[in-house]
Amino acid sequence: MADAIRSSAAATVTPTRGGITAPRGFRTGAVHCGIKKSPSALDLAVLAADAAGSAAGLFTTNLAQAAPVTVSKEHLDRTTGRARAVVVNSGCANACTGDTGMQHARQMAAETAAALGCAPEEILVASTGVIGVALPIDRVIAGIRSATGSMSADAGADAARAIMTTDPFPKDYAVTVTTSRGTFTIGGMAKGSGMIEPNMATMIGFLTTDAQVAPDLLRKALQLSARDTFNAITVDGECSTNDSLFALASGASGVVIDEALFPALLDGMLAVSRELAVAIVRGGEGATKLIAVTVENAASIDDARQVARTIANSPLVKTAVHGADPNWGRIVAAAGRSGVKFDINRLTVHVGGTLLFENGLPHDEAAPVAAEHLKGKTVQIDVRLGAGRERATIWTCDLSAEYVKINGEYRT
Amino acid sequence: MADAIRSSAAATVTPTRGGITAPRGFRTGAVHCGIKKSPSALDLAVLAADAAGSAAGLFTTNLAQAAPVTVSKEHLDRTTGRARAVVVNSGCANACTGDTGMQHARQMAAETAAALGCAPEEILVASTGVIGVALPIDRVIAGIRSATGSMSADAGADAARAIMTTDPFPKDYAVTVTTSRGTFTIGGMAKGSGMIEPNMATMIGFLTTDAQVAPDLLRKALQLSARDTFNAITVDGECSTNDSLFALASGASGVVIDEALFPALLDGMLAVSRELAVAIVRGGEGATKLIAVTVENAASIDDARQVARTIANSPLVKTAVHGADPNWGRIVAAAGRSGVKFDINRLTVHVGGTLLFENGLPHDEAAPVAAEHLKGKTVQIDVRLGAGRERATIWTCDLSAEYVKINGEYRT
Repeated sequence: MADAIRSSAAATVTPTRGGITAPRGFRTGAVHCGIKKSPSALDLAVLAADAAGSAAGLFTTNLAQAAPVTVSKEHLDRTTGRARAVVVNSGCANACTGDTGMQHARQMAAETAAALGCAPEEILVASTGVIGVALPIDRVIAGIRSATGSMSADAGADAARAIMTTDPFPKDYAVTVTTSRGTFTIGGMAKGSGMIEPNMATMIGFLTTDAQVAPDLLRKALQLSARDTFNAITVDGECSTNDSLFALASGASGVVIDEALFPALLDGMLAVSRELAVAIVRGGEGATKLIAVTVENAASIDDARQVARTIANSPLVKTAVHGADPNWGRIVAAAGRSGVKFDINRLTVHVGGTLLFENGLPHDEAAPVAAEHLKGKTVQIDVRLGAGRERATIWTCDLSAEYVKINGEYRT
Repeated sequence: MADAIRSSAAATVTPTRGGITAPRGFRTGAVHCGIKKSPSALDLAVLAADAAGSAAGLFTTNLAQAAPVTVSKEHLDRTTGRARAVVVNSGCANACTGDTGMQHARQMAAETAAALGCAPEEILVASTGVIGVALPIDRVIAGIRSATGSMSADAGADAARAIMTTDPFPKDYAVTVTTSRGTFTIGGMAKGSGMIEPNMATMIGFLTTDAQVAPDLLRKALQLSARDTFNAITVDGECSTNDSLFALASGASGVVIDEALFPALLDGMLAVSRELAVAIVRGGEGATKLIAVTVENAASIDDARQVARTIANSPLVKTAVHGADPNWGRIVAAAGRSGVKFDINRLTVHVGGTLLFENGLPHDEAAPVAAEHLKGKTVQIDVRLGAGRERATIWTCDLSAEYVKINGEYRT
């Protein structure tokens, strides 16, 4: 077994094999129903618990919300946080599709419910892909019948492929969490983001656990773990119509999460979410490097996040990293325009651990060492504000000509 | 004479020849002092009024402010809005240069003051170029002596070239304003923006007028005209350490601006500022198209600006325009994530006057017509929020692979 990657007073977290179906009590079915053109491309998956359990969801804050987002929120409201399954398709976002789109999302839930023998509101729905195009609903219905007819606890990897759009690789991960009251497992899968329409788009993530968790605790763990993982990544600062993150708990391990074991659940969900979130950035459009921007010594966590996010979304910083240019001036200027107040003379900038800016002045003699670090695949930028004790990290990728090509020349 | 381009009850505004020295009472001297490598490249200019007059300045909001910005603000405070001249160099921003940088900026003011025979605080200072590098102050001093020894009312075009960094072309413009109480002239020049360090950077603009204006009215006119022009443009959302905009009034026309003639002054300053601001965007790094994003029917002007700015800074919108892709979905998604509240079902999107999105649904049949518009050099995006009666326009440029190349591969 691999080494422990995280441990709290309550638990030891260890990577384990498999992905979304690593926890007991979950099965998936994944098929090609015909939304994607290639006949070998999986484009529909059903992820189901053996019985309805606790469920939670986080959704895009964009005012333009896709039909499946609206339906999933309604269902979680109606059941006060219980679900049996999620049905998800790729290749079509079912967004900006009006009343027809709402009908289609409801049909997807109803068909999945009929196949699994549960109420439609126990089904959550997700879609990802082209905006403004109606789902080929007959094919989707046929696909749901086929997928629910071939559910397996070993098909998690297929599900991770079925949710891909422009992602360069599938993303799944799982950990076991060992506590004094027993062991449970957390699995996850996600698809990446970076563009919207008419290309493929939107981050969608799924977490499963066989711990037994009340809906309110599951929701709290999802929010807290997403804050520093899925909500701490950016490819291009865009936020789509379909962004969704789901958590389902089967309870099959028999380990009951109460307040005492909550840190163990959170540690496990953080570990899985961080792995998936970083994989999304690594697979960002045109990305050649992963960039971690850590801001320390901030007056508040919000300040730290805001400075880190401004640096991470700066086109000048992202292009400089792409060109392996240790351009501290762009980092200082991005921090300075972030809206957060600090004393520029107390600011320090390190790139790959090398000090490049301090006391309002550069250390250009260190630039060659920093440039070597920037040639690698993983880049660390550290900024200290000298204003307090809080910190935050935002992950992003570099900005390449390939990004422009993917997003500007797709149709031509 | 050209047709009037703007008229209010108080005035008629007409384009005229020349730039920064078109108004009476101003002279410039421009030289190559040796900051830029090419011996034919002008890199230092002095813009002087024949006598000290009203002056106003607007400066970068970045916490990291260059030494010349600090010195110019101090001088305007001390004189309560009077100045004789501005001394400006290109090729070196004198930013992040510590105490030495402050000394150099003060020396530039003192040397110019000595040559013109005025107090140092009557001199404003501007620098643009590489951050974190000290000025070659001996060359700059020699340049100031040479420039002030060859001042002319006909050398405005040279000054416009002397402030260029990576700008593809010089930018100057002038108008005459005819009122019932006489005619005055407004001139201007600017350099573009789009990158910071270690390349060339920062927007710097200068306006002159021979109207007689009190400092408070000049400052008010500068703020109001910049709001919808220099502050309504974006190349990449970055804000530099050196951004500065100056206005000087010589009073040489004898036309006195009071409250009644203030609209005439404002109309003229708006006309010059709009021309220069749009030219900056057209000359943006890697830009191939000018994009005007107009948001109408907003609940407030701030709402309209925020939505327009979010769309104008969206990498997905900018790459789509670059690729002539009428991608309404990216415009809708950018508006939806702007933070402004509106009903997505009342939103409309036009590209080049062609309706692409209405009632929550696309008009894809119109996409080919919109695509033709996007192939041109000037693109108009109109978004109506259906939430009120306010409007705003933000100008930007497309995002090309050339932008990435300029900013990512400069040193390699």
